[in-house]
Amino acid sequence: MDIKSYIEEKGKKAREGARRLATLSTAVKNNALIAMAEAIELDADRLKRENRKDIEAGKARSLSSAMIDRLTLNDKRIKEMAQGLKEVAALPDPVGEITRMWKRPNGMQVGKIRVPIGVIGIIYESRPNVTADSAGLCVKAGNSVFLRGGSEAINSNNAIARILIDAGLKAGLPEGAITMVDIVDRDAVLAMLRLDNYIDLIIPRGGEELIRTVSANSTIPVIKHYKGICHTYVDEDADVRMAQDICFNAKVQRPGTCNAMETMLVHSGIAEKFLPRMIERFRKAGVELHGCSRTQALDSSIIMAANEDWNTEYLALMLNVKIVDDMDEALRHIETYGSQHSEAIVTNNHQRAMQFLREVDAAAVFVNASTRLHDGGQFGMGAEIGISTTRIHARGPMGLEELTSMKFIVLGDGQVRE
Amino acid sequence: MDIKSYIEEKGKKAREGARRLATLSTAVKNNALIAMAEAIELDADRLKRENRKDIEAGKARSLSSAMIDRLTLNDKRIKEMAQGLKEVAALPDPVGEITRMWKRPNGMQVGKIRVPIGVIGIIYESRPNVTADSAGLCVKAGNSVFLRGGSEAINSNNAIARILIDAGLKAGLPEGAITMVDIVDRDAVLAMLRLDNYIDLIIPRGGEELIRTVSANSTIPVIKHYKGICHTYVDEDADVRMAQDICFNAKVQRPGTCNAMETMLVHSGIAEKFLPRMIERFRKAGVELHGCSRTQALDSSIIMAANEDWNTEYLALMLNVKIVDDMDEALRHIETYGSQHSEAIVTNNHQRAMQFLREVDAAAVFVNASTRLHDGGQFGMGAEIGISTTRIHARGPMGLEELTSMKFIVLGDGQVRE
Repeated sequence: MDIKSYIEEKGKKAREGARRLATLSTAVKNNALIAMAEAIELDADRLKRENRKDIEAGKARSLSSAMIDRLTLNDKRIKEMAQGLKEVAALPDPVGEITRMWKRPNGMQVGKIRVPIGVIGIIYESRPNVTADSAGLCVKAGNSVFLRGGSEAINSNNAIARILIDAGLKAGLPEGAITMVDIVDRDAVLAMLRLDNYIDLIIPRGGEELIRTVSANSTIPVIKHYKGICHTYVDEDADVRMAQDICFNAKVQRPGTCNAMETMLVHSGIAEKFLPRMIERFRKAGVELHGCSRTQALDSSIIMAANEDWNTEYLALMLNVKIVDDMDEALRHIETYGSQHSEAIVTNNHQRAMQFLREVDAAAVFVNASTRLHDGGQFGMGAEIGISTTRIHARGPMGLEELTSMKFIVLGDGQVRE
Repeated sequence: MDIKSYIEEKGKKAREGARRLATLSTAVKNNALIAMAEAIELDADRLKRENRKDIEAGKARSLSSAMIDRLTLNDKRIKEMAQGLKEVAALPDPVGEITRMWKRPNGMQVGKIRVPIGVIGIIYESRPNVTADSAGLCVKAGNSVFLRGGSEAINSNNAIARILIDAGLKAGLPEGAITMVDIVDRDAVLAMLRLDNYIDLIIPRGGEELIRTVSANSTIPVIKHYKGICHTYVDEDADVRMAQDICFNAKVQRPGTCNAMETMLVHSGIAEKFLPRMIERFRKAGVELHGCSRTQALDSSIIMAANEDWNTEYLALMLNVKIVDDMDEALRHIETYGSQHSEAIVTNNHQRAMQFLREVDAAAVFVNASTRLHDGGQFGMGAEIGISTTRIHARGPMGLEELTSMKFIVLGDGQVRE
């Protein structure tokens, strides 16, 4: 069979599986998730063996040690994967919730009920745990999942998928509930991206290059989890100590994440009070500072920021600092360089706080809090599949609710259209 | 300038316009809509003159009289177009609504606020009124609109767009709020469909062929308004008279629409009581009936339904009739042939009503009501841009709310990530 027909066959089965999955009870879905978790723990040795193959192949291809680390499955990570599935089982089932119901003048009741989306395609790179995390969330929300991991993790991903599929089937999931594209060929991805009859949504999880390729070739709607060039604006009326704590947390707590701060904007009226101690804290934490000329005038040891720095997602202990004359300058800077991901203001001025909330265009806007809090768990939405930067369907953390669709229901007693 | 750069230039301006539009007050948007309505009425003669060119070109190309009719702008239609804009001005502004707000254990308040999507691309055919209808809805929801009408209506569409743009600018809309692709070249559409940096959402409004082309070539998410192969299932426990009224309305009231019934499924236990009088009513209304063999046994004058009939969206006074042995057979038929648009059951049995609501996969599911009620106005959602059959973002009638996105807002007092 050629690759296209092979993938199409899988798509068809996934669609059929989705129809059955959509009407499964919460109990069956939860039991399946727990069975999957247990199977993963039970099969840890096999997983590590398969993972070994990927690691050796990666070393032969001279992958960086960071890449090898992301690839690696050890006992701790396998346990976390299983734990993640159990946590998803414990979350409330979003399917079947009637979110609104209202009465029309002709007496009919119109409502919206939460239903699964159908088949969700996930295209991802390196970390094999994404296989289990994505499958768990999709299945809990009543969706079939159509997985395609990176070639560097093919053995690990196939092994995890095999365990999940077998355990799921035994626990009552339909065939086609979980599908893994188990061949490396690039044509397989391209064929998958054209399955608009069988896949309803594609979520790429990976770097810029992956997201671009997926968007350019997909005939299926894509929800992007794109980069975060996030700012914190320290207003003239900020509480200095609070601003320092928030900025420090936003940069240092976990710099490799999309919601970490990359640029700090400081009002000129507070710069002399705020910056010296802040710079000292950052220095001690090993943060490399790039500043505008005014920042340099305050502290000549700061590196002069190059133009492209303002556009860079460092994902590292590096930070741009800019002194601005007013909030308008900060807003313009954010509009120009921000990636509409996470933006924060620190201020005690109510009017400016409200203006910043209203005018800044981002998936999440913060007043007096760290951008690092932009996260499904922190927001109380449970586990998430990522943070969407797409403006339709779901923006911000994508949890179980965001993996569902709605249908209208109408209860009448003979209503017709006049 | 080549076509690609020309379209890109327009896209860039639309994006800039969207940024300004997003923060306009409700009053400015409403005044602009009313000014646009008045300008259209004032310029009716020019519109009719430009429309004349399209009609003559259409006749020279031997377009069908139905096509010519859809193309035609007369005083009544121009008045309706203006009236539509005024009605949108009167609807509540969806932007700025905080739909939820909740408190986290660390004390921060997390909320979701409704914001515009950004730039919405509309690709449509023949009816020139779509130009004004789409622009009105998009602008009211704070979005820039990027319009591309059919070549057959190019003069009419360009004239309407010119009037809207000029009136809007005078009334305070930003440049780029309304954009019309004013050239016929097919490459212009293809270039538009690749503007994923500048357009956030594409809505094709037209036939299957248009929708397919758009989906296949767009790197921007597409929300489809696809065909409706809609069923009404008359259950054994239906009120016979109510079922007849609902089915008659669903087929006859306006057969050319996507929510009209194309197939009637009748439980065998009620067929002899229900069908004879129903068939008579349909006959008198000029409905051509295609039936399964059991229907034919009841009334031999009914045409034998061919296999493809069950798959056909007639959009005309034609109807398939099938007798089924139980609801399961009806559900399987709907799953096989339905287009997930509008599906109805008529029954007094509560359990079956609930099962039908739960299990049928469609944008709207009706109990004891006509599928013709699947409409934004009928549902109380105001004017709509169409009925979405896509499973993400918006499913069912797309009104003003569905033309918006959300952003998260967080109000803290110093919260950081632990």
